Amino acid sequence: MLDETHDPKRQSWVLSANGHPDFPIQNLPLGLFTPPGGGVPRAGVAIGDAILELEGEAQDGSLNALLGRGGQARQALRARLSAALAKGSAEQARLTPLLHDASACTLHVPGRIGDYTDFYVGIHHATAAGKLFRPDNPLLPNYKHVPIGYHGRASSIIPSGTAFRRPRGQLARPGGPEFGACEKLDYELEIGIWIGPGNAQGTPIPIAEAAAHIAGFCLLNDWSARDIQAWEYQPLGPFLGKSFATSISPWIVTPEALAPFRIAQPPRPPGDPAPLPYLTDAEDQARGGFDIALEAWLVTPGLAARGLAPHRIADSNARHMYWTVAQMVAHHSSNGCNLNSGDLFGSGTISGPERDGYASLLEATQGGTQPMRLASGEERRFLEDGDEVILRAQARRTGFLSIGFGECRGRVLPAA
Amino acid sequence: MLDETHDPKRQSWVLSANGHPDFPIQNLPLGLFTPPGGGVPRAGVAIGDAILELEGEAQDGSLNALLGRGGQARQALRARLSAALAKGSAEQARLTPLLHDASACTLHVPGRIGDYTDFYVGIHHATAAGKLFRPDNPLLPNYKHVPIGYHGRASSIIPSGTAFRRPRGQLARPGGPEFGACEKLDYELEIGIWIGPGNAQGTPIPIAEAAAHIAGFCLLNDWSARDIQAWEYQPLGPFLGKSFATSISPWIVTPEALAPFRIAQPPRPPGDPAPLPYLTDAEDQARGGFDIALEAWLVTPGLAARGLAPHRIADSNARHMYWTVAQMVAHHSSNGCNLNSGDLFGSGTISGPERDGYASLLEATQGGTQPMRLASGEERRFLEDGDEVILRAQARRTGFLSIGFGECRGRVLPAA
Repeated sequence: MLDETHDPKRQSWVLSANGHPDFPIQNLPLGLFTPPGGGVPRAGVAIGDAILELEGEAQDGSLNALLGRGGQARQALRARLSAALAKGSAEQARLTPLLHDASACTLHVPGRIGDYTDFYVGIHHATAAGKLFRPDNPLLPNYKHVPIGYHGRASSIIPSGTAFRRPRGQLARPGGPEFGACEKLDYELEIGIWIGPGNAQGTPIPIAEAAAHIAGFCLLNDWSARDIQAWEYQPLGPFLGKSFATSISPWIVTPEALAPFRIAQPPRPPGDPAPLPYLTDAEDQARGGFDIALEAWLVTPGLAARGLAPHRIADSNARHMYWTVAQMVAHHSSNGCNLNSGDLFGSGTISGPERDGYASLLEATQGGTQPMRLASGEERRFLEDGDEVILRAQARRTGFLSIGFGECRGRVLPAA
Repeated sequence: MLDETHDPKRQSWVLSANGHPDFPIQNLPLGLFTPPGGGVPRAGVAIGDAILELEGEAQDGSLNALLGRGGQARQALRARLSAALAKGSAEQARLTPLLHDASACTLHVPGRIGDYTDFYVGIHHATAAGKLFRPDNPLLPNYKHVPIGYHGRASSIIPSGTAFRRPRGQLARPGGPEFGACEKLDYELEIGIWIGPGNAQGTPIPIAEAAAHIAGFCLLNDWSARDIQAWEYQPLGPFLGKSFATSISPWIVTPEALAPFRIAQPPRPPGDPAPLPYLTDAEDQARGGFDIALEAWLVTPGLAARGLAPHRIADSNARHMYWTVAQMVAHHSSNGCNLNSGDLFGSGTISGPERDGYASLLEATQGGTQPMRLASGEERRFLEDGDEVILRAQARRTGFLSIGFGECRGRVLPAA
């Protein structure tokens, strides 16, 4: 799996790529963009501060066809791009006119998302959130057997940088529910998973083949209205507490780029049940995890006005996933449900085991009871209007060059 | 709203339409079909035993653009079609070559469904199903305040007549879960609602404008694996217990065709809370309900082998909806969630208050404890391989011609 495209010494003739924290030549994530002049969206690859246009790869206004072609096509594209963008390539002159200044381009949701599914595989989040409702029994009996997930809303998924309105909804009050602006607006730090080829209805994807159906990864912020959610969610699960907006980072980081950062699936604590056979695969256990540092940062109007730095609100890692992405794919399709290229999964909130890793305000402020204090003198129990949350991810391993996901930013506008 | 297109005396030069139980000239539902020769799907309107092709209305392989044009365009199309198909029309000669024998055509899911949402507005179902889990407290406290719904799976929605495999999944056992074929496969009789123009993200649809965003109706069978569902659904709701298949009838019955069959929203029982203002509209209260007879029929291999008639397993009516479709639209968008043309809602199971109206086997057999006996000597607790469920709907009102929805059929194939 590791080849010269991962060589940490490889440099690009696109000079901003060399030393770039997110997009060195070892990354080469795929995206959908519109250059400053506008027009139909085009496929591109991030390289340093630039985007290299990939001609003919976004014919229907999305990357779905490219995602659907699967691993071999993606690997071949990576090899071609890595060679063409490497220092000394004979293609520099031909490709230079296809480079765009990324900061001047508009980045879009790259896939036409047929279905969006949000999982719940961050066990520290499930435990911490469960404790707020059931102190003695935070994890439900199915959690260690079933990769719990639910269908989410695809239409309201927005790319990083798009602000959204604070939702309104039914809020429980002592005298009965009232309709008003959400008072407990939260974020959730998640990994997004883009689906590649997919399966026909009625034909599950075996766990050993699941990795071949994963086209790439992004950051995902599952904005959550805790008060709306608490009142509405029984018995059919989260609905309007989530469906107003979900933000994703626009670059699809490929499995090939992340190959150096795979780790063994973290061992289950003693006493935990073994996964059922349809979720068990030796290769997945050996390489199904990821070492990716995940962070969330908060920018408030008060911090911005004083020129103060963003406040880090979560410091976690993708290794805290109880189920692997292959297990999610195998489970989701195990009943015959058909996955299609361009479908998106969310991992669920990936919190670390300690307080600094709590990747939602619900956890970090203990349901709003222990406010967070900022350098501006402000306090936060939940998000206020004008607040912006920035998610970042960095895959790191000794002997390899770090790669990042790019930012997933979203800002809260006042309720309508 | 009522005009000459509803005149019960109007007859068609398509002779099979006159006296047709589903598709007289007063109905004119829209669909997507492929004629026997194959090729790209085409738009059509059902008239008796025929389909009249609507040229140029399915350019992108779906009816989404037509649905998105909204009520005025749909009404104008209805008026044109009703005149052109009426006995004595000068257009008979021009249109005759565009008629196809419906029984020889393939009917498709008519819209490209961006998102599918399943509601839970059948209060008798919510009560009966809740009783099985919570005998003393069947309805949760939010039910009479919130039109409860959840996101469903769009990819596995199939048109009437498509068989599907019995799902496999995790089944709770005394010694821990096992993976196997579903043993409690059920159906649910629902109405489907197709969304018309829709709204921009962040801009809710007020209840007074909600009806303008409803493009039409169909039948929907929300196949349910009760055993998979029971084990997986806490805390995030139904997932693989539902996502293996959902069947719909392929014809979109328009709000214009159903105008004669609107009724007042059934009054809430004394003591029930009034809906919140964002769900309250005088016009909706006066005409937000429907008088549509809803039936489910079962065909088993044993009944078919003996040449016996299908067994009616549910006799219900759309009037048993606690919330109107306008209330569903207003609620769904109240948090700013964007609805798009081609989105589909399910009503949730619409059971009647008495046993013959229980519109799922879960209710009719009391969770499988009271089997149903058939004329073939067979018994059914839940669905067995080879069983077929047929849903039918008829809108009836004295002084008007009845119209139907056409069938929603689905047959269970053995697990893979």
